[in-house]
Amino acid sequence: MRFGERLDQELPEVSTQIYRQYRDFTDREPTIGAAGKIRVHALVGLLRSVLFPGIYESFPDDADNVDVFIAARLRDAGVELRSLVYAALRGHGQCSEDCQCRADEISLAFLKKLPEIRALLGLDIQAAYNGDPAARGQEEIILSYPGFEAVMVYRLAHELYVLGVPTIPRIMTEYAHTNTGIDIHPGATIGKSFFIDHGTGVVIGETCTIGDRVKMYQGVTLGARSFALDADGNPVKGIKRHPDIGDDVVLYAGATVLGGDTKIGDRSVIGGNVWLTRSVAPDSKVYNTPPVLKITRL
Amino acid sequence: MRFGERLDQELPEVSTQIYRQYRDFTDREPTIGAAGKIRVHALVGLLRSVLFPGIYESFPDDADNVDVFIAARLRDAGVELRSLVYAALRGHGQCSEDCQCRADEISLAFLKKLPEIRALLGLDIQAAYNGDPAARGQEEIILSYPGFEAVMVYRLAHELYVLGVPTIPRIMTEYAHTNTGIDIHPGATIGKSFFIDHGTGVVIGETCTIGDRVKMYQGVTLGARSFALDADGNPVKGIKRHPDIGDDVVLYAGATVLGGDTKIGDRSVIGGNVWLTRSVAPDSKVYNTPPVLKITRL
Amino acid sequence: MRFGERLDQELPEVSTQIYRQYRDFTDREPTIGAAGKIRVHALVGLLRSVLFPGIYESFPDDADNVDVFIAARLRDAGVELRSLVYAALRGHGQCSEDCQCRADEISLAFLKKLPEIRALLGLDIQAAYNGDPAARGQEEIILSYPGFEAVMVYRLAHELYVLGVPTIPRIMTEYAHTNTGIDIHPGATIGKSFFIDHGTGVVIGETCTIGDRVKMYQGVTLGARSFALDADGNPVKGIKRHPDIGDDVVLYAGATVLGGDTKIGDRSVIGGNVWLTRSVAPDSKVYNTPPVLKITRL
Amino acid sequence: MRFGERLDQELPEVSTQIYRQYRDFTDREPTIGAAGKIRVHALVGLLRSVLFPGIYESFPDDADNVDVFIAARLRDAGVELRSLVYAALRGHGQCSEDCQCRADEISLAFLKKLPEIRALLGLDIQAAYNGDPAARGQEEIILSYPGFEAVMVYRLAHELYVLGVPTIPRIMTEYAHTNTGIDIHPGATIGKSFFIDHGTGVVIGETCTIGDRVKMYQGVTLGARSFALDADGNPVKGIKRHPDIGDDVVLYAGATVLGGDTKIGDRSVIGGNVWLTRSVAPDSKVYNTPPVLKITRL
Amino acid sequence: MRFGERLDQELPEVSTQIYRQYRDFTDREPTIGAAGKIRVHALVGLLRSVLFPGIYESFPDDADNVDVFIAARLRDAGVELRSLVYAALRGHGQCSEDCQCRADEISLAFLKKLPEIRALLGLDIQAAYNGDPAARGQEEIILSYPGFEAVMVYRLAHELYVLGVPTIPRIMTEYAHTNTGIDIHPGATIGKSFFIDHGTGVVIGETCTIGDRVKMYQGVTLGARSFALDADGNPVKGIKRHPDIGDDVVLYAGATVLGGDTKIGDRSVIGGNVWLTRSVAPDSKVYNTPPVLKITRL
Amino acid sequence: MRFGERLDQELPEVSTQIYRQYRDFTDREPTIGAAGKIRVHALVGLLRSVLFPGIYESFPDDADNVDVFIAARLRDAGVELRSLVYAALRGHGQCSEDCQCRADEISLAFLKKLPEIRALLGLDIQAAYNGDPAARGQEEIILSYPGFEAVMVYRLAHELYVLGVPTIPRIMTEYAHTNTGIDIHPGATIGKSFFIDHGTGVVIGETCTIGDRVKMYQGVTLGARSFALDADGNPVKGIKRHPDIGDDVVLYAGATVLGGDTKIGDRSVIGGNVWLTRSVAPDSKVYNTPPVLKITRL
Repeated sequence: MRFGERLDQELPEVSTQIYRQYRDFTDREPTIGAAGKIRVHALVGLLRSVLFPGIYESFPDDADNVDVFIAARLRDAGVELRSLVYAALRGHGQCSEDCQCRADEISLAFLKKLPEIRALLGLDIQAAYNGDPAARGQEEIILSYPGFEAVMVYRLAHELYVLGVPTIPRIMTEYAHTNTGIDIHPGATIGKSFFIDHGTGVVIGETCTIGDRVKMYQGVTLGARSFALDADGNPVKGIKRHPDIGDDVVLYAGATVLGGDTKIGDRSVIGGNVWLTRSVAPDSKVYNTPPVLKITRL
Repeated sequence: MRFGERLDQELPEVSTQIYRQYRDFTDREPTIGAAGKIRVHALVGLLRSVLFPGIYESFPDDADNVDVFIAARLRDAGVELRSLVYAALRGHGQCSEDCQCRADEISLAFLKKLPEIRALLGLDIQAAYNGDPAARGQEEIILSYPGFEAVMVYRLAHELYVLGVPTIPRIMTEYAHTNTGIDIHPGATIGKSFFIDHGTGVVIGETCTIGDRVKMYQGVTLGARSFALDADGNPVKGIKRHPDIGDDVVLYAGATVLGGDTKIGDRSVIGGNVWLTRSVAPDSKVYNTPPVLKITRL
Repeated sequence: MRFGERLDQELPEVSTQIYRQYRDFTDREPTIGAAGKIRVHALVGLLRSVLFPGIYESFPDDADNVDVFIAARLRDAGVELRSLVYAALRGHGQCSEDCQCRADEISLAFLKKLPEIRALLGLDIQAAYNGDPAARGQEEIILSYPGFEAVMVYRLAHELYVLGVPTIPRIMTEYAHTNTGIDIHPGATIGKSFFIDHGTGVVIGETCTIGDRVKMYQGVTLGARSFALDADGNPVKGIKRHPDIGDDVVLYAGATVLGGDTKIGDRSVIGGNVWLTRSVAPDSKVYNTPPVLKITRL
Repeated sequence: MRFGERLDQELPEVSTQIYRQYRDFTDREPTIGAAGKIRVHALVGLLRSVLFPGIYESFPDDADNVDVFIAARLRDAGVELRSLVYAALRGHGQCSEDCQCRADEISLAFLKKLPEIRALLGLDIQAAYNGDPAARGQEEIILSYPGFEAVMVYRLAHELYVLGVPTIPRIMTEYAHTNTGIDIHPGATIGKSFFIDHGTGVVIGETCTIGDRVKMYQGVTLGARSFALDADGNPVKGIKRHPDIGDDVVLYAGATVLGGDTKIGDRSVIGGNVWLTRSVAPDSKVYNTPPVLKITRL
Repeated sequence: MRFGERLDQELPEVSTQIYRQYRDFTDREPTIGAAGKIRVHALVGLLRSVLFPGIYESFPDDADNVDVFIAARLRDAGVELRSLVYAALRGHGQCSEDCQCRADEISLAFLKKLPEIRALLGLDIQAAYNGDPAARGQEEIILSYPGFEAVMVYRLAHELYVLGVPTIPRIMTEYAHTNTGIDIHPGATIGKSFFIDHGTGVVIGETCTIGDRVKMYQGVTLGARSFALDADGNPVKGIKRHPDIGDDVVLYAGATVLGGDTKIGDRSVIGGNVWLTRSVAPDSKVYNTPPVLKITRL
Repeated sequence: MRFGERLDQELPEVSTQIYRQYRDFTDREPTIGAAGKIRVHALVGLLRSVLFPGIYESFPDDADNVDVFIAARLRDAGVELRSLVYAALRGHGQCSEDCQCRADEISLAFLKKLPEIRALLGLDIQAAYNGDPAARGQEEIILSYPGFEAVMVYRLAHELYVLGVPTIPRIMTEYAHTNTGIDIHPGATIGKSFFIDHGTGVVIGETCTIGDRVKMYQGVTLGARSFALDADGNPVKGIKRHPDIGDDVVLYAGATVLGGDTKIGDRSVIGGNVWLTRSVAPDSKVYNTPPVLKITRL
């Protein structure tokens, strides 16, 4: 029997089964879906070109008039943001009466935060320049430092998280995670002049707080130690599970700090691969005891 | 001399050299090539929209008729799959007589497996929801959990691997690796309700087996300890090289388990950064002795 | 008040603030910008299809004439490269007189290096085949081994780095970093027959040197220990900060070697997770003392 | 004042005015809109590749299995058609109860007509080959004869028109009009073996009927002479306004035949630029009296 | 000799010749070029979606807030328009001092005209509905009447023409010409409620004026009779060369009216194929004497 | 029964019927197919940017080096042309032995003709400038005169026609026909300084010859009067069927000249709508006797 005939004969049963699975799936009406995910990615692009005109946009014909371009992109971003926020709120049933109205409030509040976010990003760029001898200039950092890309997206997503927008902030930071290997939960709180070098494998959990002028390398985890389960064995959501990092702390590659009660005091240095589940005082230098290496001749 | 003239003068020698290298390259007739790679990526997208209609597709106008969309996507996937399988089989000389016939059999067998794969993925989503206090709902997991994305692609690729399709399964899982940082070989065998959190740096080797309800974090490696060489110094292919993980095991961030004889018993917990090259009994809790940290004041 | 009216009322202040930030930004005239970044990515694609005709290109109608395609792609790559190099040089003020002339020289020098690069890549493919029992053939390696992709891009970027091109080499290797999780600085010097397996999290620093036939796994770091600051507290650029790896060295997953004075002697094997900040003699085998695992029953 | 500030100041009034015009526009909720128009164009492409597999599609790997591709494209076309028909019916309020149900019926009825349409198009191709000494072969006609393109689209659109689908048939023939300059209303009735040569400027009205084996050249109009107005001065819709053309008629370039009562008898030949508003018997040859040309020397 | 070698050998001479031709070409620095042409086409799309929100845009989630979308599209159009106008003015050396300033003035003046243009288009739609018994509704006219498309683009282009913008208005109307076969020069002056049916082949010249409520069919030409040459034999630019058409005039298919002194009085009807080079009084009905047809039997 | 089930039930019969029609279709193995058609369109674009660098391409960074861009585009065009010519020749069985060899010869011969074609196009632009008082400059003509676009494509296609390439030349001129409404057969022979104004509806037949400095308006037809049939009733291919137009002839809108023996002498002027089927001497002025218009009052 020809392949075409076999498809005619055998596929109907398969699609019927998948259709039944679809019907049984509780969450089957998506709030924004994969199409919305693509729109969120595009929104990140729009916001990026608002924040760094001339770099993330082809340069305008007359540099003196770059303000016109900023204003146009800003409005585009506002319109798209509000449409997405509305969809996300409605889908999560988070607004008893007027979702549109809440979407308006949130979108405007976010847009007004952009200059503040831009200022923070300026400090992050400076931190990268000071923190990496290989850095040649600001444009290089903006265009080719994964740490900066992840932090930029985080700072945007965090504002939306704070404003109570569901789903979208996570899609934003996961977009950065895909591109950079750096996974920062939008719920984390991160201070000024933050720099992540190389960055692949960095994980920063939802209830983490990080002070100013912190610097970290690839593979650093700021995670949970364990988490509570409720009577049904489901995890209790919303509890403080991740550590607090003070100001001016440095975390070397592969350092792991776990637990909601763990605090790293200001100006501390956490060595590579250190595994910390308790607090350390300010000005601490924490290293593994020199590893006893077994060196033999082949 | 102008640049154009110099190109005219100097490039011919360069292209002649590269052409000679091309001619000397033993594998120069590709089976599916980079163009086929792009088609494989698109196929993953088609299969995804078959498995999660309404989420990976723009929602149909009438939700009651979603079955029509499933059936159409399913058929498209079937046609494309078979064309790719045929190309891959023919290129590898794996079918003495009728490659087309084998491609038909494989494609149909795969399509019929889809409901079973969909059922497994439903359990994986549930495992993610239970395993991460930060998870807000199923759509969020489907759209923004890299662990779920990697497992979804793995489950599809694994079926093709089992059916003996060359090249394509590896391209599929490497596509997920690029997007998520999670590298699961399509040859691995993974049980139900599997969850990888964050996931960057996870490596699961070809001959690994993993039981049901296993959970792991970023940076976990299930790898080979060493491998045999044949008389010519080439690696012997197809030998069991990677560990077996029992049911209900948890592996924390950075845990490394190596070796084809290594078995982790059911319900064991392997702590962060633990390096294991031998088996442990069921219900074991394996931690590094508390690292002796040297803490000094700066 | 309607959302539209509120945008009209509130956005002007926001865009004015961002515009001021733009004006205060010292690096605001980009050399190649995000648009140039996209062109660099496309250039990598062109060069790839020059180096592996038939694989990275749809196969030509007559395989005997593949030379015509090579020559055409080579010229396209040359034209695009020179335009980008010119923009980068001009932007960095690196040519006192005739940037165009220097761009010509650099571009031609680079193009002439391509056969040599192709020859090196042939050895890298062979190294991957020999180094991974799971590898089925050369096409599979070219299409689905992240280690090979990262090394291919590195070898191209490194030539441009050596020729003194700013910004572009870093964009190239960061492109590979995004796709593979492997971060090789274009300034590093890497010998023949190099193989990185899995690769997520690998970091190879700017002033690193690596010998021939080296093999490494995911999560290996060849990094800096610390770096000097000048009188103003800025990092001193251009100092040797990363280690030297000899010939035939193997570095297992998670191994970390730090410091500009650190030398790993030929034929040494560095075990998984080893943390090395001093030199070891040739033929050394360096392992952590078997970790004392605490194994308890749950 | 800067341009940006002026936009901020002056645009709000403009958009408010346009918004008011939008609100006053009676037809402002579109049935399928410009987005639907693009989908209709894509549907024409799908149907074309169903009807001429191997030509309008990249050729399948194994010509014996072209049936699989036909079936897959056919199903895709069916799904898309039904979605569009549903939107069009609902928007026009043409189904008192169950629009979905009517969309199903119409779509299936249309799909079943495709073999008949294909057979008619085969005769049209033959007519073009016989009617133009410049024609070199069937593929050339399918790919580069505007007359064939217009007739193909007409034959598809006409079936939908007959099935009572609003808006979509007109969008289909207007698509052909844009590409070919040939304007055939989907309501016209056209017999077998129809050929239009060159075709630019041809107009065939809604209530026209055309027999078998008719051939016409560019600029032929089969139009209305005048039309009735109702008491309000609006045109009365649905009245027979265009001529009937018999079998085997030839109409040369620029011929104009007008009026709902006008009948051109079988086998008649209508000369170039003839203007006819009354019927002619079968076997008539209608030419303008040889134009009295005034020929002077310059 | 292989093809590649022959290209290497023979192409340099060809490109050198073409390069010389390029250097000798007086107009070789384009004002906006083919890239600008594409941007002009996109601008037409933007303006269209401003004027007909909900039809030329995918419909917004909340119809009450369509004003937000109008305002965003309007601003985008403004920014893009001004950038193009600036390029066009600068290229033509039409602004002695401050091109940017003139571009600002022109762009704002144009944007403020949009509500008036929208109002005119509303009347044109109504004229189409009344003028064609086949018209089913307003959406159908907007989406599938070439006459409406050509008039819409003309009305936009005409405003720019009046404001003194070079090149762009012609590119806009030629875009419509390509899509519809209707060639209206942007310099023509056209009154209210204008309708062109079918339209292929219509030509309306630069210095034409057309009154209110005029209706015309395909193939109508309002052209020049001849034109003056200056002492060098070049055409004298800017002289009135095309006719004036009064109010309520109807021109049937193929009617040709030529000459700058020719005036068609109000309410006149010009029959099909009539060739007029002199004025006619108001209320005239102009037909060719009934053509003497020679009708013979075959 | 649901729609999905009905498709499953009823579509197989439909696709089987269409598949049978496909099998019975004599020309079913296309030479270049619709995919090749798209490549031909792209080739026209490449050739255009070779001929008019700086206009049809985004302008190069350094205008002095435009030669590099010309050479690169030229080579790309050459490679693509040869691949298409090869496919077309092979499909038509026009080369008994070595199609590749003939494709090489033809492609090189064509490329070497490009400077000559460019020179002719320069004269055509000048003719347009002199022939239309509304023309503002050369760029405007290149970008927005349909007559120029059609002639440019014709001049390229004609060379390929002369070199014996099947199918491709017709696809090229039909591409221009679609865009401009001007249908010039690639077999026609056209002299220098040719200008078509407006152009919609112009038809120039395969065996036509046109002298130098000819100018024509929209709707001009240079066609066949009738054509010979062979014993089987098929048209005899390759006979001279279209007129010869001398130097310096002007043909006004709608003029029709028919027949292979018809010659229009040098410097003649053919008036609007004139219908000519016999030759006229040089310096003739041919007008219709002033049409007797019936002018009545309404």
